[in-house]
Amino acid sequence: MAVHERTMGSDLSTRDRLLKAARELFFQKGYASTSIADILQAAEANSGSLYHFFPTKQDLLLAVLEGYRTGIGRMLLEPAWRGVEDPIERVFALLARYRMLLERSECAYGCPIGSLALEIHEPDPVVRELLAANFDEWTSAIERCLVDAGDRLPRDVDRRGLAIFALTTMEGGVMQARTHRSLAPYDAAVRHLKAYFRMLEAAAATREEAA
Amino acid sequence: MAVHERTMGSDLSTRDRLLKAARELFFQKGYASTSIADILQAAEANSGSLYHFFPTKQDLLLAVLEGYRTGIGRMLLEPAWRGVEDPIERVFALLARYRMLLERSECAYGCPIGSLALEIHEPDPVVRELLAANFDEWTSAIERCLVDAGDRLPRDVDRRGLAIFALTTMEGGVMQARTHRSLAPYDAAVRHLKAYFRMLEAAAATREEAA
Repeated sequence: MAVHERTMGSDLSTRDRLLKAARELFFQKGYASTSIADILQAAEANSGSLYHFFPTKQDLLLAVLEGYRTGIGRMLLEPAWRGVEDPIERVFALLARYRMLLERSECAYGCPIGSLALEIHEPDPVVRELLAANFDEWTSAIERCLVDAGDRLPRDVDRRGLAIFALTTMEGGVMQARTHRSLAPYDAAVRHLKAYFRMLEAAAATREEAA
Repeated sequence: MAVHERTMGSDLSTRDRLLKAARELFFQKGYASTSIADILQAAEANSGSLYHFFPTKQDLLLAVLEGYRTGIGRMLLEPAWRGVEDPIERVFALLARYRMLLERSECAYGCPIGSLALEIHEPDPVVRELLAANFDEWTSAIERCLVDAGDRLPRDVDRRGLAIFALTTMEGGVMQARTHRSLAPYDAAVRHLKAYFRMLEAAAATREEAA
């Protein structure tokens, strides 16, 4: 999918404006509730350019999802991990980033990938696979932290599964915080994930001593 | 909200048919994608009866959410907990129920409350509060199990917070399983929640011995 392929001159900015408008509207209103007219108005574009770049609304969705996938480092991980070198602290620094997004929005924030994953009830395979690829990017980034943590975690801990568990904490925590309009459920979930990590670290340390 | 108030004769069945059609369509297609025409067709009702019982689509949504809230025992907890007396096993029996729902649907299942909580981007306060009340029912049922577990868990463990953490595991696990069309992420998340519980139980047992 060549969604980031650059075209010449004014084509570039029109395409980018359409993409930005779609990303923001899907985030604010959801996919089904966003109309083509909404996108044209927000992008200040005409329907001819829209259909030239994105023949269907789903093409726009795919481009938005591909943008999230390729932008995860720049938009999410790098700002979350600036100045944080410890791999286990990085897991919680990423979760703290979502807390900040919740706090700034008075808990109206929703993870754009998680929201689209639940909003679109019967996604075409290409949409579902790109949603899954976004989750995979997130999970792989955390899995790398857990691998970097080395023997600070017990050797037999499934690090991929633990990364998936960190993602359930974020997604389920954001969902509850957003619904209760309160940080309390998010904080409770992260606190328990942290307690679990401390116990895993203690178990690894004890075995190290015993060996 | 007297959504379960019974009215006479044929009124009853028309109202119930409308409610059932709305619940099933919101679950299958989402709220925004369900039209009034879809509901009338599925309920075999005319628009006059619909507007008599539910003047707006949101009134139908509220009645559906209230039905989930009041029906949680009968529809979810009782079947999940049949034959399971141990309070900690009940936590995992409830999570196993969602696994069965995922398995039966070839992982297309989504929690109806979680899906509506993320689909509806700017819910009216009355909708949001009823979504939150549904989460509260679920969390309170698990919290009661954790209270019943008594000193099998460390005394200082926040049982409400731990119930919230169980809900993040379910919601985040269902979201990932549905997106990957695979039980593996759900199983990984539940496995880690179970490991955390085993560690909490071990910590409680150790302190018991020491005391």
